[in-house]
Amino acid sequence: MMFGNSRGPLSQDESETGRLEAFSDGVLAVIITIMALELRAPVGGSFTDLRGRLPALLVYILSFAIIGIYWNNHHHLLRAARRVTGGVMWANLHLLFWLSLIPVLTSWIGEHYRESAPAAAYGVVGLGAAVAFAILTRAIIRADGSSSPVAQAIGRDYKGRVSLLLNAAAIGLAFVSPWLAYALFVSVAVMWFVPDRRLSR
Amino acid sequence: MMFGNSRGPLSQDESETGRLEAFSDGVLAVIITIMALELRAPVGGSFTDLRGRLPALLVYILSFAIIGIYWNNHHHLLRAARRVTGGVMWANLHLLFWLSLIPVLTSWIGEHYRESAPAAAYGVVGLGAAVAFAILTRAIIRADGSSSPVAQAIGRDYKGRVSLLLNAAAIGLAFVSPWLAYALFVSVAVMWFVPDRRLSR
Amino acid sequence: MMFGNSRGPLSQDESETGRLEAFSDGVLAVIITIMALELRAPVGGSFTDLRGRLPALLVYILSFAIIGIYWNNHHHLLRAARRVTGGVMWANLHLLFWLSLIPVLTSWIGEHYRESAPAAAYGVVGLGAAVAFAILTRAIIRADGSSSPVAQAIGRDYKGRVSLLLNAAAIGLAFVSPWLAYALFVSVAVMWFVPDRRLSR
Amino acid sequence: MMFGNSRGPLSQDESETGRLEAFSDGVLAVIITIMALELRAPVGGSFTDLRGRLPALLVYILSFAIIGIYWNNHHHLLRAARRVTGGVMWANLHLLFWLSLIPVLTSWIGEHYRESAPAAAYGVVGLGAAVAFAILTRAIIRADGSSSPVAQAIGRDYKGRVSLLLNAAAIGLAFVSPWLAYALFVSVAVMWFVPDRRLSR
Repeated sequence: MMFGNSRGPLSQDESETGRLEAFSDGVLAVIITIMALELRAPVGGSFTDLRGRLPALLVYILSFAIIGIYWNNHHHLLRAARRVTGGVMWANLHLLFWLSLIPVLTSWIGEHYRESAPAAAYGVVGLGAAVAFAILTRAIIRADGSSSPVAQAIGRDYKGRVSLLLNAAAIGLAFVSPWLAYALFVSVAVMWFVPDRRLSR
Repeated sequence: MMFGNSRGPLSQDESETGRLEAFSDGVLAVIITIMALELRAPVGGSFTDLRGRLPALLVYILSFAIIGIYWNNHHHLLRAARRVTGGVMWANLHLLFWLSLIPVLTSWIGEHYRESAPAAAYGVVGLGAAVAFAILTRAIIRADGSSSPVAQAIGRDYKGRVSLLLNAAAIGLAFVSPWLAYALFVSVAVMWFVPDRRLSR
Repeated sequence: MMFGNSRGPLSQDESETGRLEAFSDGVLAVIITIMALELRAPVGGSFTDLRGRLPALLVYILSFAIIGIYWNNHHHLLRAARRVTGGVMWANLHLLFWLSLIPVLTSWIGEHYRESAPAAAYGVVGLGAAVAFAILTRAIIRADGSSSPVAQAIGRDYKGRVSLLLNAAAIGLAFVSPWLAYALFVSVAVMWFVPDRRLSR
Repeated sequence: MMFGNSRGPLSQDESETGRLEAFSDGVLAVIITIMALELRAPVGGSFTDLRGRLPALLVYILSFAIIGIYWNNHHHLLRAARRVTGGVMWANLHLLFWLSLIPVLTSWIGEHYRESAPAAAYGVVGLGAAVAFAILTRAIIRADGSSSPVAQAIGRDYKGRVSLLLNAAAIGLAFVSPWLAYALFVSVAVMWFVPDRRLSR
């Protein structure tokens, strides 16, 4: 039931990018707010009850920042893209798949932040998302050709490589201590958070 | 309280298609992420606890792929559509209805993947969605007339017919063994997943 | 922190309508899918367990149809609107407020469909939504002036008045028997569901 | 992986504002409906059971109105904005972060409305959101320069300052009695709710 489009090639590509962005935005908006839903209200009504939810709040802040960073980067990536092929579409869904697992892991860490398994699983999902983002970047460059603005802008992609490395390291270090893994996750987020000269022009 | 539109007929049709797409995208984005919410965090904090959630994760991946495939096909179907009538609107809502049942069944299978009823119910919903997609296609062709680009593009629609057949077979086979049904669901997904030449141009 | 807009009046009004539609669509898309989330998976894995969830499924179908009808009507109402004032915005949020209560009542009826209170409460929300829709219509007519296309199209608004009446009757009849109330809710939905000549042109 | 945009500077800025609005709308739409999901259905099927949920309903109405007010103001703020820098993006996500905490606090107050901690925590989030909105306003003015329409429209921003003050007061007064805090929250909402001459032109 798949078929080409009956409108002009240029307008199609532009508006295809638009719909891919819109759908991805929808998914990211739901992911970011669903995490807030998994922040369960404290059981009692006192501040002591609230304090017991503090680790869950901190990991929520981290996950919120990570989704925000991906939203930001995804946004710039798609604006530089010219064509949407089937490969780009699936690469995009593949990225959304990994990001969609962040809420459940956020909630898992919130309950068991002193154990290794949740931290390591969070690292696996972080690594999966970083790899998926790299695949999406390659798929867009392949669709657009070697003169692609994405290819030129992305250059050697230091930040992307360092993110991959730190996430991979976090998986292993989670077995030494989950706190080492958390330190790496925060470092990756801070690295992206710092204003990027290429973005602010 | 329903009434026609005061703007030109052409711009109306185009932007009606746009809003139908946007609303459907919104619903699909929520469905795809709500499934992630039903992926409950493991009860304990060890890898053994995570392993207990593995079947739920696998059926989540399957459902994620199915929603992704529908999003993809729906997207191409609506871009080829020219007019949105009341019939098209209701046919579209009918499709969304069936798809909206996927999360609860995904969660049901995740908990009871060894039993027949959840697998058969999943097949019923899959069949319902496939039939609804076929109805939507017919409704668009009826609205656009016989020269409709949809009518030409869809041709004999082998993939659509095979999907219907396999989903129907899966309902029956679920009573023999749920694993046969799962094998058919995966086959349908893989069949659609493989890059489609008509899509990639 | 509110202020007027710096762009031309015409483009502003059109795109304001657009954003009001988009936001409302987002809320409606979430409402319609959140109901699916409240359809909890059966506790066991057999068909008997599934049968126990049947009333919940039926009231879900009813609520799904009602939200679909509102989406449809809201869509046509806003496309005929010309200006978005503060009053229109709040009238719109007021409508969304009532509709946002449908999921929790759908879930309440699903669990207690033999009792009067849930059916009556559903009627109150249905009445509230119908009144809110009427207020929104009046607000748009007031903003657009007496030559408003909405004013002309809506005419005497028989369907709207009958809906109000039947919902009000259902609240009272729920105390005689909830089944009478359900019969009225279904009647209202069917009345709107039947293709409307004004819509299909 | 961040990079500039390959299209013209003017069209980029306009559509960047558009996407920022669309994403924020998505998040706000989900927040507003997720609160409805946390309105759990009464346990029994009688009106007495419904009455037990009344405080939860009232605080839901308050939170719904607050999100509605933010949506409204955010909408007007972004329409007056001309450029979207990295700083504006993060200031916007920061605002969404605070607003995303409203559902969980709404649910907490709904269960423990007689205690101080939930009311004080609600005040902290309200204050955080008000501060975040002020920061976002400043970020937009900085990006647009001193002749910014936002800078002119916002003037001395009495309402914003009074909101900050009342929310801060509510945090302290919650320890005297939560009811004093609720009275202040309602006052802030009513103050914004009253039609604003600058908005209606």
